[in-house]
Amino acid sequence: MIDFSNDAAKNLKELREKKPLIHNITNYVVMNFTANSLIAMGALPVMAHAENEVEEMASIAGALVINIGTLSDPWIRAMFKAGHAANKNGVPVILDPVGSGATRLRTETSKRLIDELDIAIIRGNASEVLSLAGEDSKTKGVDSIHSVEDAAQAAVELSLELDTVIAITGPKDLVTDGNTVYRVNNGHELMGKVTGSGCAATTAIAAFAAVNKKYAEAAAFALGYYGLAGQWAAMKHTSPGSFRVGLLDSLYEIGGADLKTGMKLEVLHES
Amino acid sequence: MIDFSNDAAKNLKELREKKPLIHNITNYVVMNFTANSLIAMGALPVMAHAENEVEEMASIAGALVINIGTLSDPWIRAMFKAGHAANKNGVPVILDPVGSGATRLRTETSKRLIDELDIAIIRGNASEVLSLAGEDSKTKGVDSIHSVEDAAQAAVELSLELDTVIAITGPKDLVTDGNTVYRVNNGHELMGKVTGSGCAATTAIAAFAAVNKKYAEAAAFALGYYGLAGQWAAMKHTSPGSFRVGLLDSLYEIGGADLKTGMKLEVLHES
Amino acid sequence: MIDFSNDAAKNLKELREKKPLIHNITNYVVMNFTANSLIAMGALPVMAHAENEVEEMASIAGALVINIGTLSDPWIRAMFKAGHAANKNGVPVILDPVGSGATRLRTETSKRLIDELDIAIIRGNASEVLSLAGEDSKTKGVDSIHSVEDAAQAAVELSLELDTVIAITGPKDLVTDGNTVYRVNNGHELMGKVTGSGCAATTAIAAFAAVNKKYAEAAAFALGYYGLAGQWAAMKHTSPGSFRVGLLDSLYEIGGADLKTGMKLEVLHES
Repeated sequence: MIDFSNDAAKNLKELREKKPLIHNITNYVVMNFTANSLIAMGALPVMAHAENEVEEMASIAGALVINIGTLSDPWIRAMFKAGHAANKNGVPVILDPVGSGATRLRTETSKRLIDELDIAIIRGNASEVLSLAGEDSKTKGVDSIHSVEDAAQAAVELSLELDTVIAITGPKDLVTDGNTVYRVNNGHELMGKVTGSGCAATTAIAAFAAVNKKYAEAAAFALGYYGLAGQWAAMKHTSPGSFRVGLLDSLYEIGGADLKTGMKLEVLHES
Repeated sequence: MIDFSNDAAKNLKELREKKPLIHNITNYVVMNFTANSLIAMGALPVMAHAENEVEEMASIAGALVINIGTLSDPWIRAMFKAGHAANKNGVPVILDPVGSGATRLRTETSKRLIDELDIAIIRGNASEVLSLAGEDSKTKGVDSIHSVEDAAQAAVELSLELDTVIAITGPKDLVTDGNTVYRVNNGHELMGKVTGSGCAATTAIAAFAAVNKKYAEAAAFALGYYGLAGQWAAMKHTSPGSFRVGLLDSLYEIGGADLKTGMKLEVLHES
Repeated sequence: MIDFSNDAAKNLKELREKKPLIHNITNYVVMNFTANSLIAMGALPVMAHAENEVEEMASIAGALVINIGTLSDPWIRAMFKAGHAANKNGVPVILDPVGSGATRLRTETSKRLIDELDIAIIRGNASEVLSLAGEDSKTKGVDSIHSVEDAAQAAVELSLELDTVIAITGPKDLVTDGNTVYRVNNGHELMGKVTGSGCAATTAIAAFAAVNKKYAEAAAFALGYYGLAGQWAAMKHTSPGSFRVGLLDSLYEIGGADLKTGMKLEVLHES
């Protein structure tokens, strides 16, 4: 394993010093949890979705998260407005295509967002990423029925085609910019028992992308940090209610030195 | 007491093996909590409310929850679309008429849903159920001012009239299909101190209805299991913040063997 | 320090006996947390935002909270309808101008609400309050970049101009009706690490205003009680996930006798 832990620790330090504003247009289910997650990490979350304010908010943000978990037409319009404003101002846009593949609305909206906006990073589960790659993917609601490994090759191709970093989360997360492929050997299965844990992973990526313009690296560091928080929480809690509380605690407690010893990142392939 | 605990344990086992997709059109306040509750039980929650995707989602679900806690016109339209799609596909529809009786919008929407859709199970507090029975019921916001006993006779009559299972929750829950009347002697008063605990009870009913087509039995088992989780949580926690966390933990921890010893269900009347 | 603790304890007792209905039109992010906070305090929360029911709900409430944290046009219309109904029925209206100063939509909506409605109490952070006073205030998303002291003079002038109680929360909260200025020496810095802790402070003010028509006093008592809950939580928890749980627990656990010993309120100025 190459040792990225010093760079990751530096990113985390910078995140906590700069406290970047992360603008989220996200789903109703996870808003509270992802806002609390971002605060625990050290960032400043703001949730704003009105068509008549998102451009202003996205323009001053350190990163913009577009999460399609509970879509409706006015929100889709706001996502495009915010996304264009972010693009114009050099603010990285992170897309979480929740449930893409499950309904036409979600798949088509994800593809339109990818086509019309300049997306820095896409974070999804394997089924969601496959659905974007044009595979005839099915999901079970918003849950993946494919493994990360199933989607790895499609992710690399999609990344090259779109010139976008792709992060697939699952038992072992995978991040690629089409050239380098990172595998993140952190995380815990109880994370799958908390609604919005994937969405919160996306916000961690956004927070790191606000301080590290090498987006593949930022995504890999964020997932290593977030996965380590899951491992810390699982050392204290074995059921999902208290694990969820412990996950927020751990995001707050983990410091740079902990990343240096705990983050397990490897480069699978570099071209 | 008749011993239903073996059948209830079988339902819980099947629920955790099949992991049915539960489609929720529910209120903003409880979405996160009910999603986490469903995951803790073993089901797969999905929250989707857009008119242009609910039919697709409801068609593939194991059960559909319609919860009117924070209504607006677009959501009402989505409820009807999803409900008709569920009816067409044999997916049971569970209605939670939150605050029916408190405002005309809520009472009238509940009645229209009942008239136009084939509802498998209605779960409400006593005031809500009385409001559906055409009684001049008042509620205090979304809280009941009537006792379960007040509403018992109305529930039996309403159940027969609508050919729908009625579940009234309160200190002692009551479930009836118009013929059999079950009383659930599980639960804890701290459940009343957690917003959405009634809504989460409704989702437990939906999860059991997805694996047991005898809907009165499914509702009674679900409330026994859910009430037992409240009792477990109250053994460890005496204040509502930590009790709420413990409730999620207990939903996850309770297994079939625990139901066998802890569920307290009785048949009050069988015609 | 003048000893207000007996009066505050009486308010808390009355709150728990009368269980006033608090109608909230509030943002998606905090709805669950503020509902749970209100229940823990002893009040009955209801969240309702549909234009076709808010007048009915606001008319029967003990207080109405208008919180602009996630605005959209239909919600703004509902805020005015509910506000006018509350005014007509003598129900105090509490405004939380979340993020005023951050976007034009928020600043202008806050000002319109203040102009057209009779607002009993405004609760915001320093940046938000300054933005209402016409100062060229900037906020970082929804977070203050000004200190409470920066905003104190503007608050007094604004309070006199609008004939409205102003409460500014921060490390030391300040409440004024333009004549008397209270400082609240309760609270803990971890409160700033929980999303919606300011919004929940606003709901505490609403709950106290429902039982105490001296609104400056009600706001000061509420913030003393709420701040003390933060201190209690911080004695047990040092990270934000578990602190948040402990805050809800403490709101429930604190009784009148605890207020008498723990509330630290002083009058800075009386004219």
